[in-house]
Amino acid sequence: MENCFRLKELQIEEILSLLDLAEECRLGKHCNELNGKLIANLFFEPSTRTQYSFNTAEERLGCKVINFNPQASSLQKGESFYDTVKTFESFGVDGLVIRDRADEYYRSLIGKIHCPIFNAGDGKKDHPTQSLLDLLTIRQEFGHFEGLKIAIVGDVKYSRVAHTNIEVMERLGMQCFISGPEEYRDKEYQYLNFEQAVREMDILMLLRVQHERHEQKMTLSTEEYHQQFGLTPARVKQMQEHAIIMHPAPFNRGVEIADEVVECEKSRIFKQIQNGVYVRMAVLLKVLGERR
Amino acid sequence: MENCFRLKELQIEEILSLLDLAEECRLGKHCNELNGKLIANLFFEPSTRTQYSFNTAEERLGCKVINFNPQASSLQKGESFYDTVKTFESFGVDGLVIRDRADEYYRSLIGKIHCPIFNAGDGKKDHPTQSLLDLLTIRQEFGHFEGLKIAIVGDVKYSRVAHTNIEVMERLGMQCFISGPEEYRDKEYQYLNFEQAVREMDILMLLRVQHERHEQKMTLSTEEYHQQFGLTPARVKQMQEHAIIMHPAPFNRGVEIADEVVECEKSRIFKQIQNGVYVRMAVLLKVLGERR
Amino acid sequence: MENCFRLKELQIEEILSLLDLAEECRLGKHCNELNGKLIANLFFEPSTRTQYSFNTAEERLGCKVINFNPQASSLQKGESFYDTVKTFESFGVDGLVIRDRADEYYRSLIGKIHCPIFNAGDGKKDHPTQSLLDLLTIRQEFGHFEGLKIAIVGDVKYSRVAHTNIEVMERLGMQCFISGPEEYRDKEYQYLNFEQAVREMDILMLLRVQHERHEQKMTLSTEEYHQQFGLTPARVKQMQEHAIIMHPAPFNRGVEIADEVVECEKSRIFKQIQNGVYVRMAVLLKVLGERR
Repeated sequence: MENCFRLKELQIEEILSLLDLAEECRLGKHCNELNGKLIANLFFEPSTRTQYSFNTAEERLGCKVINFNPQASSLQKGESFYDTVKTFESFGVDGLVIRDRADEYYRSLIGKIHCPIFNAGDGKKDHPTQSLLDLLTIRQEFGHFEGLKIAIVGDVKYSRVAHTNIEVMERLGMQCFISGPEEYRDKEYQYLNFEQAVREMDILMLLRVQHERHEQKMTLSTEEYHQQFGLTPARVKQMQEHAIIMHPAPFNRGVEIADEVVECEKSRIFKQIQNGVYVRMAVLLKVLGERR
Repeated sequence: MENCFRLKELQIEEILSLLDLAEECRLGKHCNELNGKLIANLFFEPSTRTQYSFNTAEERLGCKVINFNPQASSLQKGESFYDTVKTFESFGVDGLVIRDRADEYYRSLIGKIHCPIFNAGDGKKDHPTQSLLDLLTIRQEFGHFEGLKIAIVGDVKYSRVAHTNIEVMERLGMQCFISGPEEYRDKEYQYLNFEQAVREMDILMLLRVQHERHEQKMTLSTEEYHQQFGLTPARVKQMQEHAIIMHPAPFNRGVEIADEVVECEKSRIFKQIQNGVYVRMAVLLKVLGERR
Repeated sequence: MENCFRLKELQIEEILSLLDLAEECRLGKHCNELNGKLIANLFFEPSTRTQYSFNTAEERLGCKVINFNPQASSLQKGESFYDTVKTFESFGVDGLVIRDRADEYYRSLIGKIHCPIFNAGDGKKDHPTQSLLDLLTIRQEFGHFEGLKIAIVGDVKYSRVAHTNIEVMERLGMQCFISGPEEYRDKEYQYLNFEQAVREMDILMLLRVQHERHEQKMTLSTEEYHQQFGLTPARVKQMQEHAIIMHPAPFNRGVEIADEVVECEKSRIFKQIQNGVYVRMAVLLKVLGERR
């Protein structure tokens, strides 16, 4: 493992061993184990969770951290994505954490950037560390993956989370469905009526409508969306006893999820965020650690 | 002391012991004493002094620091204040330093956020660390509080500094007055004619007109303001020999304070800023230190 | 050496000793040698290379680092440049790295700010650490300065890089020329036809057209600029065997430099960026180190 572009490139064994390493991090192991390594965080798109949980993971591991602020950079003078990344490589960093608006941005860097790259999200394609934290959360809950049923509900078409998750979850033996408005449906995946999804799934994973990635306005009003596809307290009651709610966040309270549901007993949303720090520590350790 | 929301909640003894601890920090003690503690600075409003002196205090104490940049965050995608704060708590930080535009923003967090919160200013209500640095500066100057006369001059109505200061200063036995334009007068407090305040006070504390918090435009022009309520060199000459000038800053040179007065002999403005680092170290130590 | 305002103020011996120190840093020496020193980076203008290579240098030296973000600061409430700088001095920092739009901004600080200031670029006047990294790159290439011919091509008039470089390079015995469009010509310097410069120079240093510093629009279109003054692969072939290409960056691919030329064999552009970290470490060590 030299980079972390796409989860697709990792074998199941490698993924499970990353989750094991993340669990060790959760137990307080590995602190300061990357002491002195220099990491730059390059977020060309806004981010809270991914950006600052990488930042937290790096700090916990004892790294020296450079946080790039696009708004105060030479991007404002027209400098390109590639030249910015190449500049940070030239500084001699040990690793680059990158998020960009372009699908598979890393293709333009392969063979040209010679330090490890950690993909913190590329366009609507991949988000490997998000999937890892989702898997960690699921494994903590159920102890296994085989046979679990998940429905990913909402703006699937524009969601890197959905694409990355379905690929890896199917490899792990899970049954994956999509649900939500017709207009965000991706024909590749098996569609399930929302009410049925609520009743039958082990995991309901909700997605935010990502207005910023759309070319057209949503046809439903937010009220209509909530009524038809929002997870309301009434719908939560119809879920199976053992079933859980997940969301990569940020979420829109009152749209895809009711206000009261965000922190209800079935919700694992903030647990996912906690786990985000551990899986990012694991990925950094795996790629940059001495003993890999 | 589990949080630092409002100075009101602290006993006089606790406040004086914080000032003592700040003096120790000024003498170079306690460096790196919070080694490895993880602090996130969440400033939802622009800030120079408070933001970066907290940052400096944290660095001096050896903390690992995460600086949130709202402009590059998911606030841009509509994420709420509460969900942002809850996200940082989920990262496992040891403390959160928060400034927000909303009065008493911390009320929405009580019982929901389980790590210590350091209030770096809430709307026009409280600014506890600012008051502490003001008190430290006054004690360094006069050696005591009892009987000292202070006038707070200017935009009192919209000033969290004024509200927090008057409450605690009266408890400490100081005599507090307000002065300045009629329109910014807060009826709760004792009003003093500005020329009288200049001549009779031990401490003149000037405030900036906070245009960004007003709904209506100021009726005075800046020139008129300066003429009627600006601290000019001529007025400085009328102050008592031992009297001092304070200002929480940022200040508007040529409006509430003449350019030449900012760094004159009576001014303690930059000393206040120095003290800001020490009181913030003290507050962090008190809440997060091992020996509390 | 108490500050680093302008290279002009340094003797040749001092400059050469800084380059020697930078070479030691390149070899991995001096890491963490400024352990615990507190540095604030104040960039009032956007920057990628200078800002983050100073940041990298500081991290490598073990400093505690405060990064000022103007967009989230009290500059938004009208606070001045001077008052912002004075505020950071009051925090007790050991050094300030400053870039500002104003020519010779440091003049307003002399005698008032009592900690070392590292000039990271002032308006269109000076950029001492950029010149140092250019000199380091040239010395690595040629082993000496005496007699080398350099042409600086492009927007010379508005370029602090050009002004700082020509002064020091002439002192070092180099022959300096300028070239490029008539409108950016600085009458002080010896002008050379571009085609001649391409054929005869040891070093071609290209500059970006700095639209953001101009009052008038460029008369040439970018296509015309590229045709007349752009370094194309065809022109690279006419350069001398041993000649090299430099650029302070950011560059505009397809304007002053063809896309394919940026990383061609003759280009030292990313090597310059590498060297930027080493010279900045050297300057910080020289001014803040124990043994100066």
